[in-house]
Amino acid sequence: MAIRTVVWGENVHEQKNRIVAGVYPKGMHQAIADALNQDPAIEATTATLQEPEHGLPAARLADTDVLLWWGHAAHKEVSDEVVERVAEAVWSGMGLLVLHSGHFAKIFKRLMGAPCNLTWREAGERERLWVTSRNHPIAAGLPDHFELEQEEMYGEPFGVPEPLETVFVSWFQGGEVFRSGLTYKRGAGNVFYFRPGHETYPTYHDANVQLVLKNAVKWAHNPAARVQGDVTRAPNVPVEQALESIEERGPKLHHAGEEGLR
Amino acid sequence: MAIRTVVWGENVHEQKNRIVAGVYPKGMHQAIADALNQDPAIEATTATLQEPEHGLPAARLADTDVLLWWGHAAHKEVSDEVVERVAEAVWSGMGLLVLHSGHFAKIFKRLMGAPCNLTWREAGERERLWVTSRNHPIAAGLPDHFELEQEEMYGEPFGVPEPLETVFVSWFQGGEVFRSGLTYKRGAGNVFYFRPGHETYPTYHDANVQLVLKNAVKWAHNPAARVQGDVTRAPNVPVEQALESIEERGPKLHHAGEEGLR
Amino acid sequence: MAIRTVVWGENVHEQKNRIVAGVYPKGMHQAIADALNQDPAIEATTATLQEPEHGLPAARLADTDVLLWWGHAAHKEVSDEVVERVAEAVWSGMGLLVLHSGHFAKIFKRLMGAPCNLTWREAGERERLWVTSRNHPIAAGLPDHFELEQEEMYGEPFGVPEPLETVFVSWFQGGEVFRSGLTYKRGAGNVFYFRPGHETYPTYHDANVQLVLKNAVKWAHNPAARVQGDVTRAPNVPVEQALESIEERGPKLHHAGEEGLR
Amino acid sequence: MAIRTVVWGENVHEQKNRIVAGVYPKGMHQAIADALNQDPAIEATTATLQEPEHGLPAARLADTDVLLWWGHAAHKEVSDEVVERVAEAVWSGMGLLVLHSGHFAKIFKRLMGAPCNLTWREAGERERLWVTSRNHPIAAGLPDHFELEQEEMYGEPFGVPEPLETVFVSWFQGGEVFRSGLTYKRGAGNVFYFRPGHETYPTYHDANVQLVLKNAVKWAHNPAARVQGDVTRAPNVPVEQALESIEERGPKLHHAGEEGLR
Repeated sequence: MAIRTVVWGENVHEQKNRIVAGVYPKGMHQAIADALNQDPAIEATTATLQEPEHGLPAARLADTDVLLWWGHAAHKEVSDEVVERVAEAVWSGMGLLVLHSGHFAKIFKRLMGAPCNLTWREAGERERLWVTSRNHPIAAGLPDHFELEQEEMYGEPFGVPEPLETVFVSWFQGGEVFRSGLTYKRGAGNVFYFRPGHETYPTYHDANVQLVLKNAVKWAHNPAARVQGDVTRAPNVPVEQALESIEERGPKLHHAGEEGLR
Repeated sequence: MAIRTVVWGENVHEQKNRIVAGVYPKGMHQAIADALNQDPAIEATTATLQEPEHGLPAARLADTDVLLWWGHAAHKEVSDEVVERVAEAVWSGMGLLVLHSGHFAKIFKRLMGAPCNLTWREAGERERLWVTSRNHPIAAGLPDHFELEQEEMYGEPFGVPEPLETVFVSWFQGGEVFRSGLTYKRGAGNVFYFRPGHETYPTYHDANVQLVLKNAVKWAHNPAARVQGDVTRAPNVPVEQALESIEERGPKLHHAGEEGLR
Repeated sequence: MAIRTVVWGENVHEQKNRIVAGVYPKGMHQAIADALNQDPAIEATTATLQEPEHGLPAARLADTDVLLWWGHAAHKEVSDEVVERVAEAVWSGMGLLVLHSGHFAKIFKRLMGAPCNLTWREAGERERLWVTSRNHPIAAGLPDHFELEQEEMYGEPFGVPEPLETVFVSWFQGGEVFRSGLTYKRGAGNVFYFRPGHETYPTYHDANVQLVLKNAVKWAHNPAARVQGDVTRAPNVPVEQALESIEERGPKLHHAGEEGLR
Repeated sequence: MAIRTVVWGENVHEQKNRIVAGVYPKGMHQAIADALNQDPAIEATTATLQEPEHGLPAARLADTDVLLWWGHAAHKEVSDEVVERVAEAVWSGMGLLVLHSGHFAKIFKRLMGAPCNLTWREAGERERLWVTSRNHPIAAGLPDHFELEQEEMYGEPFGVPEPLETVFVSWFQGGEVFRSGLTYKRGAGNVFYFRPGHETYPTYHDANVQLVLKNAVKWAHNPAARVQGDVTRAPNVPVEQALESIEERGPKLHHAGEEGLR
C-alpha cells in the first residue's frame, strides 16, 4: 500500500504575492504533492490553512502516514487545538517533515521544546547542500553535494536540540553554514527538518530537492501500527498484576485504582 | 564562586500529608537544598509554588545557575507565564534538574516536546540503579549500582526523546526497568532528568541520591555567559553586512530592515 | 527484490557440545536463517568459521545486504583480514546485526572502538526485554515487553559508545539490567546489537526474538547503492576544480596531484 | 589541582620543512603546550614520536588527565602497542583531543571504528568556524563565528560516527563545509575532534583556536577517578553473589569460576 501523505501548505503568499503565484501557480502544497506523486510508493494529497480545521480533522490525521508542513506568514493563525492534535498524531506514529520557514511553525517549536531560531538573509544567493551522513536513506541517490542557485540564507546557530543525525549541512555564498537536514524522533513518530524552500524561488521544482522529499517520506513512515487510545496516558500497574510477585510495603499516597496525578 | 542553585518544590504534600511531613519536616525542597549545601561548590536556596511568581521572578532566574524542580500534585497550578520564563532561562544557559514526578511538570513537557508518560506502581518495592555511562560526571564517586529499598516504580516505555546520554537504568522488584538518568541540552541549557524521589520515602536522605544531585548540579552548570536579550530572536543579516561580498539577486518577499515572520 | 541476508555462525559449540547440538541440530546459523526465510522480504543463507575465508569472500560480501554475526568460543580464530573486509563492507553500506556473545567478536570491537565488556552469569534465569523506543521499526509488532524464561545474564555497565537509539532494555531475575538493543551507524552501514541468544537455550526458536531479527534485517538494509571503490580514500580536490573560484595562497606542503598522507 | 595535560606532537615537518620550522620554531606541540599553560587551571607538557615509547609510557598516561594528539606524516610509525595503551587510557577515563590531520591517526581510527576520511585541498583559503551548539563549554567565550584567513580545506562527507554533539561547522572559501568540532565518549573517556591546524599556517597562534583548546581540555577532563585494573574485563557474577536470590536452572556451558570466552 502506498504511503498516505498529506502536504500542508499555508497558502498565503501564493494568493497575495504575484512572484510566488508565478512560481507556484497551483500553490506550493500542490507542487510538492505533485512531485511526491511521481513516486508510486507515495500517495500525496494536500491540506491548507483556509480549510475547516486547517484540513486536518482527527479522522484524516488517523489515516495519514506522513505529514509535510510548510508555513511562513501565518504561523500565529494556526489553531492551538490543531497543533496539539498533530503533535499527538506524531507521538502515536505519524511521520512529520517540516520545511524551511516551518522552523518557526507552532508544531515544530512544540515538538522541539527549543527556540528554533536562526539568522537569515533574502538575497538570492547560492546554497550548496553537502551530505554529512553518507548514504543515509534520506540522501539515497543524491551526489555528495548539490546546489540551489538562488535561495534565502539561514545561518547558525540554529536553536534546535541535537538531532539523532545530521544529514545535510549547507554552504552559503555570503559566508554562513546551516545544518539543513536533521532527524528526530518524538514518541513513535519520525521527524525531519529540511531547510530549503523559500517561496520566491523555484526550489520545489528542483529534482534533487524532490528526491530528498520522496526519500524523507519513506524514511519517516513508521511501519509499526499507530499507538491506539490516549498516547499521553500513564497507566497504573496494580500490585497484584506485577510481572514478578511482590508484596506492597511502606507508606502510601495513592489509593487502589486511583488515576495518577498530572 | 559557588554555583547558584535554586531548589523549587511544589510543597503541597508536605503540608497536607502526615507521612510526607514526617519524612521531610522542612519540606522536600529544603531537604534537597540542605544536602546540596554540604558541598562548598554549591550555594542552594529554595522556591515554592505558594510564593509570588512561584518564587521565580525574572531577576532571580537571571541569577540562577542551576534550577531543580520537584512537583507532583499541582502541576496544573504552575502558571504558564512562569513556565515560559523558566524555559527561556534554560535556553539562555541555566541548568535544569527535573526530579521524579516532575516528568509530568509543565516545564519538562515543554522542553521535551513529547508526552513524558510512563507506567507506575506505589508498592514500596526495591529499586536498583545501574550506571550505564561509565564514569559519567553525574556518576562520579558512585559504585556501579546502588539500591533504594523502597521506591515507587516507574516503567518503560518512557515517552521522552532519545537523550544525549543514558546515565542510569533502574531495575524494579516487580519486573520493570526504567531509564532513570537522562541528559539533554535545550538551547544553551543542560537538562538532567533523575527518576527517584517519591515523597513518602526517605529517598532524598540517601547518600547516593544526594551525591547524584551534587554531581548533576556541577554537570548542568554552563560555564559560558548566559545569552543576553531575547533568546528566541532570529536576526536578519543585511546584504551589505554579509561576511563574504555578495550582490542581491532575484525576486524578494521582504523589504530592507524588515523583521522576520514568526 | 528480497533483502540478501547472510547469517554467520561460529559453529563450534554445535559440534562439540551435546546440549547445544540438541537445541540447534542444524546449527544456530541455520536455525536463524530458517526463521528469517519465513519472511518473503528476506532471503537468508549461512556462512561459518570453518569455510574458506570463513564463508565471506569479497564477492559474497559485495552481494550481501545484511550480515548477522554469532560467535562465542572462537573469536580469536577469525582472521583479521576477513574482519577488515567485513568492516569495509559495513562502511560501504552493508547492514550488520551482532548477536549476544558477539559483543566480544573482533568485528564488533573494531566498529565500536570501545571495550564492549559487561558482567555475566549463566544460571538460566528469567530475562524480560522492555521496548524503550516506542514503535521503533525494530520493535514493530511486539508488545511493550516480552520474556525469555531462561537466559544468560549480561549486566551493565556495557562498554559500548552511546547508541543512536536504545531500543530494548532487559530486566534480569538476579537483579541486573542491560541495554539489549542498540542501534549504530558506521560509515554508510547500519549496525544493531541484540543481546539474547545463549547457545544452551532455545532463544532463537522464540517467536518474539525471531520477529526482532526480521525487523532488524529490514531496518539495517540501506536502500542507497553501496559506496564503490576504496571506502577509506581521502581525495584531493585541486584548486582549479574548486566549486567556488579561489586562488591558491600561502605556503604549501603538498605538491600538485600528490596523494594525501595517511 | 591543575589538569595534567600532555600535548603529543609528531614533530616531523618541524624538523624537515623550513616553512613549518619558521612558523613553529619550538615545534607545534610546544606552541600548543605554551598556549594551554597560559591558563592556570591547566598544566601542559609535551611528548613526541621520537622519544622512547613515543613519550607515552604507561606510568605517564596513568598520570595524564587529557592528551592532545597532532600527527600527519608519520601515522604509520606510531607503534600499535602505544596506540592500544592510549586507547585503554581513554577507556579508563583519560580525555583525548585529536587535532586536524590526526583524523587519520591510528588512535582516532581505533576509537571511531570508522574510515575517518574526508576531502582536502591545500590552497591557503579562508575558513570560518560557526558555533552550532550554543554556549557549549568548548565554545565558552567565543563569538558565534570566527575566521582563519588561511587554512587547508577539509570537506564532507567526513567518515566518522554521528557525534554526541556537533559543536562547530566550518565554511570554506572554495565551497565546502565540514563538521569541525565533534564530541564523543569512549568508555569513560571524553574525546573531541577539532579540525583546524595545518602545519604551514599559524593556526595554533590564533587566540580563538587557543581558547577552544583550553576549553576543550577542561571539557574532556573527567572528574571521576580512573577505572583501575583491566578496563576490558568482563567479570563473572557467581549465582551465590547475585543481588537477588536466584537458583541456578537449565543446561550450562561454563563451569563455576571459569573465565568468560573472548
